[in-house]
Amino acid sequence: MTITQPDLSVFEAVESEVRSYCRSWPAIFDRAQGSYLYDEDGRTYLDFFAGAGSLNYGHNNPVLKRALIDYLERDGITHALDMSTTAKRAFLETFRDVVLRPRDMDHKVMFPGPTGTNAVESALKLARKVKGRESIVSFTNAFHGMSLGSLAVTGNAFKRAGAGIPLVHGTPMPFDDYLDGRTPDFIWFERLLEDSGSGLNQPAAVIVETVQGEGGINVARAEWLRALADLCRRHDMLLIVDDIQMGCGRTGPFFSFEEAGIVPDIITVSKSIGGYGLPLALTLFRPALDIWEPGEHNGTFRGNNPAFVTAAAALNTYWTDGQMEKQTLARGERIERTLRDIVTEHAHAGATFRGRGLVWGLEFQDPARATAVCRRAFELGLLLETSGPQSEVVKFLPPLTITPEELDEGLRIVTRAVRDTD
Amino acid sequence: MTITQPDLSVFEAVESEVRSYCRSWPAIFDRAQGSYLYDEDGRTYLDFFAGAGSLNYGHNNPVLKRALIDYLERDGITHALDMSTTAKRAFLETFRDVVLRPRDMDHKVMFPGPTGTNAVESALKLARKVKGRESIVSFTNAFHGMSLGSLAVTGNAFKRAGAGIPLVHGTPMPFDDYLDGRTPDFIWFERLLEDSGSGLNQPAAVIVETVQGEGGINVARAEWLRALADLCRRHDMLLIVDDIQMGCGRTGPFFSFEEAGIVPDIITVSKSIGGYGLPLALTLFRPALDIWEPGEHNGTFRGNNPAFVTAAAALNTYWTDGQMEKQTLARGERIERTLRDIVTEHAHAGATFRGRGLVWGLEFQDPARATAVCRRAFELGLLLETSGPQSEVVKFLPPLTITPEELDEGLRIVTRAVRDTD
Amino acid sequence: MTITQPDLSVFEAVESEVRSYCRSWPAIFDRAQGSYLYDEDGRTYLDFFAGAGSLNYGHNNPVLKRALIDYLERDGITHALDMSTTAKRAFLETFRDVVLRPRDMDHKVMFPGPTGTNAVESALKLARKVKGRESIVSFTNAFHGMSLGSLAVTGNAFKRAGAGIPLVHGTPMPFDDYLDGRTPDFIWFERLLEDSGSGLNQPAAVIVETVQGEGGINVARAEWLRALADLCRRHDMLLIVDDIQMGCGRTGPFFSFEEAGIVPDIITVSKSIGGYGLPLALTLFRPALDIWEPGEHNGTFRGNNPAFVTAAAALNTYWTDGQMEKQTLARGERIERTLRDIVTEHAHAGATFRGRGLVWGLEFQDPARATAVCRRAFELGLLLETSGPQSEVVKFLPPLTITPEELDEGLRIVTRAVRDTD
Amino acid sequence: MTITQPDLSVFEAVESEVRSYCRSWPAIFDRAQGSYLYDEDGRTYLDFFAGAGSLNYGHNNPVLKRALIDYLERDGITHALDMSTTAKRAFLETFRDVVLRPRDMDHKVMFPGPTGTNAVESALKLARKVKGRESIVSFTNAFHGMSLGSLAVTGNAFKRAGAGIPLVHGTPMPFDDYLDGRTPDFIWFERLLEDSGSGLNQPAAVIVETVQGEGGINVARAEWLRALADLCRRHDMLLIVDDIQMGCGRTGPFFSFEEAGIVPDIITVSKSIGGYGLPLALTLFRPALDIWEPGEHNGTFRGNNPAFVTAAAALNTYWTDGQMEKQTLARGERIERTLRDIVTEHAHAGATFRGRGLVWGLEFQDPARATAVCRRAFELGLLLETSGPQSEVVKFLPPLTITPEELDEGLRIVTRAVRDTD
Repeated sequence: MTITQPDLSVFEAVESEVRSYCRSWPAIFDRAQGSYLYDEDGRTYLDFFAGAGSLNYGHNNPVLKRALIDYLERDGITHALDMSTTAKRAFLETFRDVVLRPRDMDHKVMFPGPTGTNAVESALKLARKVKGRESIVSFTNAFHGMSLGSLAVTGNAFKRAGAGIPLVHGTPMPFDDYLDGRTPDFIWFERLLEDSGSGLNQPAAVIVETVQGEGGINVARAEWLRALADLCRRHDMLLIVDDIQMGCGRTGPFFSFEEAGIVPDIITVSKSIGGYGLPLALTLFRPALDIWEPGEHNGTFRGNNPAFVTAAAALNTYWTDGQMEKQTLARGERIERTLRDIVTEHAHAGATFRGRGLVWGLEFQDPARATAVCRRAFELGLLLETSGPQSEVVKFLPPLTITPEELDEGLRIVTRAVRDTD
Repeated sequence: MTITQPDLSVFEAVESEVRSYCRSWPAIFDRAQGSYLYDEDGRTYLDFFAGAGSLNYGHNNPVLKRALIDYLERDGITHALDMSTTAKRAFLETFRDVVLRPRDMDHKVMFPGPTGTNAVESALKLARKVKGRESIVSFTNAFHGMSLGSLAVTGNAFKRAGAGIPLVHGTPMPFDDYLDGRTPDFIWFERLLEDSGSGLNQPAAVIVETVQGEGGINVARAEWLRALADLCRRHDMLLIVDDIQMGCGRTGPFFSFEEAGIVPDIITVSKSIGGYGLPLALTLFRPALDIWEPGEHNGTFRGNNPAFVTAAAALNTYWTDGQMEKQTLARGERIERTLRDIVTEHAHAGATFRGRGLVWGLEFQDPARATAVCRRAFELGLLLETSGPQSEVVKFLPPLTITPEELDEGLRIVTRAVRDTD
Repeated sequence: MTITQPDLSVFEAVESEVRSYCRSWPAIFDRAQGSYLYDEDGRTYLDFFAGAGSLNYGHNNPVLKRALIDYLERDGITHALDMSTTAKRAFLETFRDVVLRPRDMDHKVMFPGPTGTNAVESALKLARKVKGRESIVSFTNAFHGMSLGSLAVTGNAFKRAGAGIPLVHGTPMPFDDYLDGRTPDFIWFERLLEDSGSGLNQPAAVIVETVQGEGGINVARAEWLRALADLCRRHDMLLIVDDIQMGCGRTGPFFSFEEAGIVPDIITVSKSIGGYGLPLALTLFRPALDIWEPGEHNGTFRGNNPAFVTAAAALNTYWTDGQMEKQTLARGERIERTLRDIVTEHAHAGATFRGRGLVWGLEFQDPARATAVCRRAFELGLLLETSGPQSEVVKFLPPLTITPEELDEGLRIVTRAVRDTD
Repeated sequence: MTITQPDLSVFEAVESEVRSYCRSWPAIFDRAQGSYLYDEDGRTYLDFFAGAGSLNYGHNNPVLKRALIDYLERDGITHALDMSTTAKRAFLETFRDVVLRPRDMDHKVMFPGPTGTNAVESALKLARKVKGRESIVSFTNAFHGMSLGSLAVTGNAFKRAGAGIPLVHGTPMPFDDYLDGRTPDFIWFERLLEDSGSGLNQPAAVIVETVQGEGGINVARAEWLRALADLCRRHDMLLIVDDIQMGCGRTGPFFSFEEAGIVPDIITVSKSIGGYGLPLALTLFRPALDIWEPGEHNGTFRGNNPAFVTAAAALNTYWTDGQMEKQTLARGERIERTLRDIVTEHAHAGATFRGRGLVWGLEFQDPARATAVCRRAFELGLLLETSGPQSEVVKFLPPLTITPEELDEGLRIVTRAVRDTD
């Protein structure tokens, strides 16, 4: 296939050098439907990226689209800060009935501003207020956002350096299986907590991703998460699960921590919660923690009502029964099989893989290989991104709504891209 | 008029105590058009609030609505991070041609995430990176956002306390006319900068609003802004204008700093830039400052393509000639006349007013009066909020597209609300 | 007079580049008595420096020397941490009877470690503990020490930069007469405190020197100090007077703040408190503030018993009546007269002077002149140092015990050095 | 033996509640000689405490005493900041010839102020300046001082809380044998350094004690120290050994790190360096690190000349041959034998011991036992203090000059005190 280089001059001339995805994928995208994007030159791209987890229901999902356009057509409130609206009420009721109650959760819902980092900032503020302590424990290779509060609990040195100030009040601990695979979990963290001479500032909370998406598709075992929840309880720390990328069904169940049988004190949700790729974020917390004063945290776009509409539609469409979870696990097994084959075929290249639900990672001994695979996949019409501190992991994040045929098509491209880069 | 108390039980049961506007305006809003909102009980509310400055073109502006629905109907890309899209290109071209070039500005455009605080965080990061210093100077009663970086340069003690950590690396300086009206401007700030023994950490940048919206409608004089720009130049500090609330025509010209004839090094824009109340934010900076590495700052919803569509439509509709600016100034004079009358009538209550373009503030000696006026206005069908550190200022922020008749209707309600609360 | 360059090679080879006084005064000092030092080549130096205020009673004062040698001879305890000793008891009793009681002060005495910066660190810790706040207000051109806590409230940019971390939790305010001489005192500070939107982190305490020694011999007026004390009381901030350099009689009375009629909540004392130039420091505070837990602050050399002995001897010798204060003021007038003459004679050079008691400063329009005067004075056998952010002030700090003849001798040298550098 | 309760009323009335040792040892000490203290009631106390390591050569050592009194008698300079003096030259020459050269060290000598915390503050400043980074790694149960810079790298939670501000820019790592005894050394630290996604702020330096005195007599193995030095070299971090308590022969050789065969980049020395219990401290560093500007760090009492005199005398008396080291190791073995016996006898109480040279610790399963043993020892005329985060370790720190008979006497008391508290 011949690729005509698109004319990117406007972006180069007017947009900041900070732009990044457009560099990996030199195309000018125009339309999208389901698992496919289309550029303005008519090329088609299968999507194994899904808006970095924001498009779990695919692009411009027709059910959500209908609900959204109807709402706009009838002049439903668009922007409402935290005024009460019918759209917000419908979302709250749906979220309560479809998500919280069936899971025996009575968490309060906060709209902290429509991005993940808003949710993390509010979660950290609340934890610090509740506990009266400044320090937060995060994990190696965590990613929680780019505003200063979130960045301080993010691991990536390059992103941290961008802060321009020393990032403090956070302490990294080893994520599951970070050390040598033999060192007992939490041996270090627990010792620090127990020893009043350890020098650890007593943490207000621990913030964790169950599967680290940006950090390299590092999957925490259920027993590790349970032990972490137990540690938090024994040492008076709040447990915050950042479910921004792994929630909304990405790993199978609606919340990624359900498999472990834990219930976090605070949960951050964003990305696919709006359903249609519209900005929306939630911070959920146990009622006893709801000690906010009115307006103590806010944000202009926290009441993005069109997103409430698509969010409610998505919940009603996909989460009133267990079908979505089952389907995700089934699709995931299909990926797993392919990755197993690839790893077997490329044992000489030190290939390994890991994942859960519909999030998977493929790593080679040579860190540059991941980028090469993604570049080749793009040429072959598949969007795939890398993750990990050295971009060393090929990350699989297709829409949850992908069909078996689409998935197979994508996996064939991956298999070929791996071979082509050998 | 009899008000039936709406059923707010869902919000009270499920939503966090942090909610605030819904407490002042106990109604459940459903639809909105132009300058009016409608609640589900059929009541009509004239809007002198405009989504805290996010709805300069009114609710569900029909031109923008058409463009938005067309885009959605044809499955235009919704969510794209910073991939290149046709919608983004159209926005960039429009912004360059309609906004930047006519003002002789060659600022680069960054999409830092779709909220004001994302824009401020990125502006502060960039300033720190460029100058290699941590400290930022802000002004008394500034408001720049609620994530930790932005909050550190925000004045409000209640909001600052919510951080849960000491907010450092920021130093407040007196805003225009903050002291006794006789003290020369910048006498303190400049002395600190000149004196190597002053104890001021040398700032990377100064961040300022030309009119402080949340801080109490404090209007900086053009000569003060020019002197500030001059101070920045002489002392090697970047000048950041936070035009999130006052930009997009609120004070008359597109950027609020145009009247002063200054060109800031960095500009943050959000709220009405999307045009339709959809989340969008920009950070603009001189090309020489564009030293970002790819991805050094990012955010999942930084490519909110539906907002690009409405943003471009708004610019093309309202900003290709000088009509909007003229109209805003004319409408503003109408408000000014009414406020002058109110102040004269209520001289005994120590009433004062100030403002510019279509942002005005009315203050009484008794700080509680502002809340009383807004409450009464609400009963009379007008949305008005307070601002200032003690909520002591009634804030006028109607859509720029308000008709003279609507404006007069609102001003009559205000006049009555002031009388009723005497 | 021919100066043989001394052999400084050992210092240059072995000692760090951080050394400073030895560069201004290239001599190898061997002995000292009263107001004179003697180098190993037999040269004599009159001392207008007095160990930067640590030798108010002159070098090797015979009364204190006797007491010290007697104590050493009889094997009195030398090092005792905070164990109870007879020497410490004698000091405490003397300090209580000679210093505290006659001034109606019931301050508790803390031994925070034997240096000024230990005292300041403990004062700041205590203030923060008592008030539960992090922020401390200091003043432009303040100097409080070189450990991180003290440095954060010190003004000098060069010294601050040495910290290697951003110094935070301190905010500088204008010292007396810092601005244009017309701006009302505290107009800015008080406004910040009153305005909950000012962005000032509410301070735990204010730390101030009554006369800034390192900062350039800046003399606070008594009424300014009283207004500051009043401000602290009205705004719930502790008042810390750092009397390390100006206490022990330097300005006349034992404490430098006595003239203003104020009683600080916390006082730091060091330098001349030991009397003989031996390391000792005290932190004094109102009994109600004594909420320390045992050992919450400590230091290995906090019980420097030989210094207790000389300290008690100095108090008993010089402070049981008002003679010392009278004499200091009389000697000070002598300096003042000379400085007035110099300033008159050198009006063309923009000479000015200021001071109180036996601390005076002489400044010229050309900042380099102060260094030139001190260098010439050294050649003429007089030790004089500069102070101020640009070393622009010649600082007069003779022993309080200097005789009128010695003082005249020194002032004659100063007069000549000024002329010689014209 | 009947103890008359001493009259401590002056201390209680005048001195701050912060005092601590005087509470454990309710006596008023008056004189001291060699290994004995005498209170004013004539009681004798054998000293197994040695001024917390400041009196390695015993109390009022006659050789040093003679040198000191001679110096005072002849009016040698007492206080000299960093002016060049004959006493300082003699010390520098002696230190170079007796300490540095024989060990092939060419470290520069800095006088940072006369206390240990001054030395640590200057070491951290220098490391940060050299590397341009803020972060310092310290170890669990480290103790480095009480001023804010030193406290931030100190482990004890109680002491840290006294800061009144969050202590940041420090990260604790596990000291030797901190975990389970099976986990490989540095597995965690090295992984953090290697992984750019770990979230560790890249450290400027590592600060370590070879034996943690305050932390509970935790002895680092030589191979652990060597591995640490290697880690520092490989990861571009400076190695700072805080030898304030363990240097000057406490563990045998002059520097405690000699046994491990490492040469730190920066070394802090204080406590016994003055020899006579007089305040003195040194910061030593490789010549290439000596990038200080003149006066960039300073302190009023950094030139404590009487301490230079006793320091030089101590070096000349005790360190010109290997006798002191041999004697210390021999005396240490005597302690070790006794502790082995005690531990055997009290195996039922879970007694353990550890140490090196003349610093030893005895621990029981019940943390309160250590305090009980020390209290009983005091009644029996022996000064012994506890250490460790819970004061759970009896700490043996006799003067290095203790005679075998005195040592045996003390060990008999210890044996009895342990029995008496069973």
